[in-house]
Amino acid sequence: MSFPQPQRTLALLGSTGSIGTQTLDVVRAHPGRFRVAVLSAQRSADLLVAQAREFKPAAVVIGDESQYLAVKAALADQPETEVLAGIAALADVAARPEIDVVLTALVGYAGLLPTVAALKAGKTIALANKETLVVAGQLVTALAKQHGAAIYPVDSEHSAIFQCLVGEKPDSVEKIILTASGGPFRGRSAQDLAQVTKAQALKHPNWDMGAKITIDSASLMNKGLEVIEAKWLFGLTNEQIEVVVHPQSIIHSLVQFTDGSLKAQLGLPDMKLPIQYALGFPERLPNSFPRFSFLDYPTLTFEQPDTSTFRNLPLAFEAMRRGGNAPCVLNAANEIAVAAFLRDQIKFLELPDVVENCLSKVSYLADPSLDDYVETDAETRRIALELVKL
Amino acid sequence: MSFPQPQRTLALLGSTGSIGTQTLDVVRAHPGRFRVAVLSAQRSADLLVAQAREFKPAAVVIGDESQYLAVKAALADQPETEVLAGIAALADVAARPEIDVVLTALVGYAGLLPTVAALKAGKTIALANKETLVVAGQLVTALAKQHGAAIYPVDSEHSAIFQCLVGEKPDSVEKIILTASGGPFRGRSAQDLAQVTKAQALKHPNWDMGAKITIDSASLMNKGLEVIEAKWLFGLTNEQIEVVVHPQSIIHSLVQFTDGSLKAQLGLPDMKLPIQYALGFPERLPNSFPRFSFLDYPTLTFEQPDTSTFRNLPLAFEAMRRGGNAPCVLNAANEIAVAAFLRDQIKFLELPDVVENCLSKVSYLADPSLDDYVETDAETRRIALELVKL
Repeated sequence: MSFPQPQRTLALLGSTGSIGTQTLDVVRAHPGRFRVAVLSAQRSADLLVAQAREFKPAAVVIGDESQYLAVKAALADQPETEVLAGIAALADVAARPEIDVVLTALVGYAGLLPTVAALKAGKTIALANKETLVVAGQLVTALAKQHGAAIYPVDSEHSAIFQCLVGEKPDSVEKIILTASGGPFRGRSAQDLAQVTKAQALKHPNWDMGAKITIDSASLMNKGLEVIEAKWLFGLTNEQIEVVVHPQSIIHSLVQFTDGSLKAQLGLPDMKLPIQYALGFPERLPNSFPRFSFLDYPTLTFEQPDTSTFRNLPLAFEAMRRGGNAPCVLNAANEIAVAAFLRDQIKFLELPDVVENCLSKVSYLADPSLDDYVETDAETRRIALELVKL
Repeated sequence: MSFPQPQRTLALLGSTGSIGTQTLDVVRAHPGRFRVAVLSAQRSADLLVAQAREFKPAAVVIGDESQYLAVKAALADQPETEVLAGIAALADVAARPEIDVVLTALVGYAGLLPTVAALKAGKTIALANKETLVVAGQLVTALAKQHGAAIYPVDSEHSAIFQCLVGEKPDSVEKIILTASGGPFRGRSAQDLAQVTKAQALKHPNWDMGAKITIDSASLMNKGLEVIEAKWLFGLTNEQIEVVVHPQSIIHSLVQFTDGSLKAQLGLPDMKLPIQYALGFPERLPNSFPRFSFLDYPTLTFEQPDTSTFRNLPLAFEAMRRGGNAPCVLNAANEIAVAAFLRDQIKFLELPDVVENCLSKVSYLADPSLDDYVETDAETRRIALELVKL
């Protein structure tokens, strides 16, 4: 019953990072299935040029405008590829008529404006940039609805939930359970963590990811952001979302239905699978990626998260419950805090201090507009920068 | 988005056994949702009468004809309930026009003919009698197709697979993995098992079930029968079915898709859930049955089945690969062997000997008719009875 599927044209925002390069692996694994029309990078100009040579996109965007001339020169002999620079160009290319799916793999708050532009153009979003929904979930999901645009998750946990919901009625969901690996510091006490280094925090036990998300995983902020992302993606109440620590990262998340039945999605920790699912949905594209076997994982374990040591997780739940611009504050404060930690300006245990402080200092807005989010983000960053310099 | 669902009228074949009584619990839990029009029991006349008093069915059938007059007398003051006797009556009542769903919870081969009658009448089958598909899977599934009748599984493993397949395309299934508790003798050597008693074999660690299926669980024949059942229920090749031992019986089974993703259905070991799912499908009926929590099951383990000690499982795979009447032989030989074990006529380790012997002695038929199945069943029972008397 298989028949040729139409080719899908992709805009890949953030093509040189971990998700971006794995997305191109997925594209390579399915020749003819996808056409890459847009590639973008913030700073990695050399890799962006190499990708452009291979995929011959209609446009490349280099975020860092100081590298525009270098990229332009490197692609001078490839006139079919337009070279653009700056974040504003991303919003333009994402909305171009030939694009079917925009995969947003930008890091942090930067993903918001291009995603909004793509949604307004009715594009399907493959969302790897969870901060977009964390910061402005209400606004973004309303926009998606208004413009008939679908948002498919790329995060492995949300892809798991999405897969478990296929064919099920939305009102049959009782709750979801997001699994968390617990990160490199699972089981350690606060005292233990007082002196951990950036190198230790960057060693994730299961997933090979970018620096920001790896630190967020170590601090459990990543799971906190995913909780808020899930609320908007799946239209859940605050009470319908739970987190369980599952160190093997095999069960990627679960849904419990109103009849008490649970469904889980499982697999090896490999982002190519959720990326491919989001790009190919509703098709499951056959592939030869390595398969999971219980022989390699004879024991799966589960435990409650330690929310007194890893305070970012309860802070995220608290921001979600407050709503309004509180999650935007949480996210901006965390971005500054993580950057400061990666520059050895603050210690690991001070990450939640920055977030908590910002949540108490930035004025609360119950029903923010897009401009309000931009302002909240900027104000929070100012306050957080002061805090990390103290 | 919920609205009143039409009431479904049920015929419950085998209402006094473990599945039957739990089915009535499900009916009680959803007042107005189901009407019980037929109840039947093989021998438990008192319980059948009590159920008839509560549910006021249009008909009750007592299989054991010697008890007909007693049941008739006990229900003399309930004229709206017709009293019938004998296995042939089951086929008649299952096909009555007012019936929507026939739940077949008969034990063993006895389920075949009433199921065939119900399918010919286009009834939806909620199948708790796996032997029907084991014995005559090709014929039964062809009949279902011909008469536009659906077969929904009640076995927890098959319900799990069924739930995981909702919304997925049939050609996206790579394989299924049936989980097995391993039964009370998991991890024991053949030497250890030489002298086990019937009482030990009847103590299942997780599930409270009837005697036949509990012995089948201890010998892994139950899993072998489920493998064959799954082949027919889900239209799989012999190579698409695997078994993994999972002692906690929380993951009820899994599907692996062609993209490498796996989905699992989980829950407490409670047959009411798969019963309710089969009766209510495609609705998930909200209920207050106890919920699963990872706090109660912090560790889930998986291991390969020990097929050299528990020989029934590879014998079932072998019968499935041979096809034709081989699974019918396997099932009939096993029914006689289990009955003999429960009468202390043979030892636990002799169960597979009886099956293996019959598989070698009964003539092979590649494409049996219903009459051929009836004959194969009878011939196998004769041979098996000789064997257990030796």
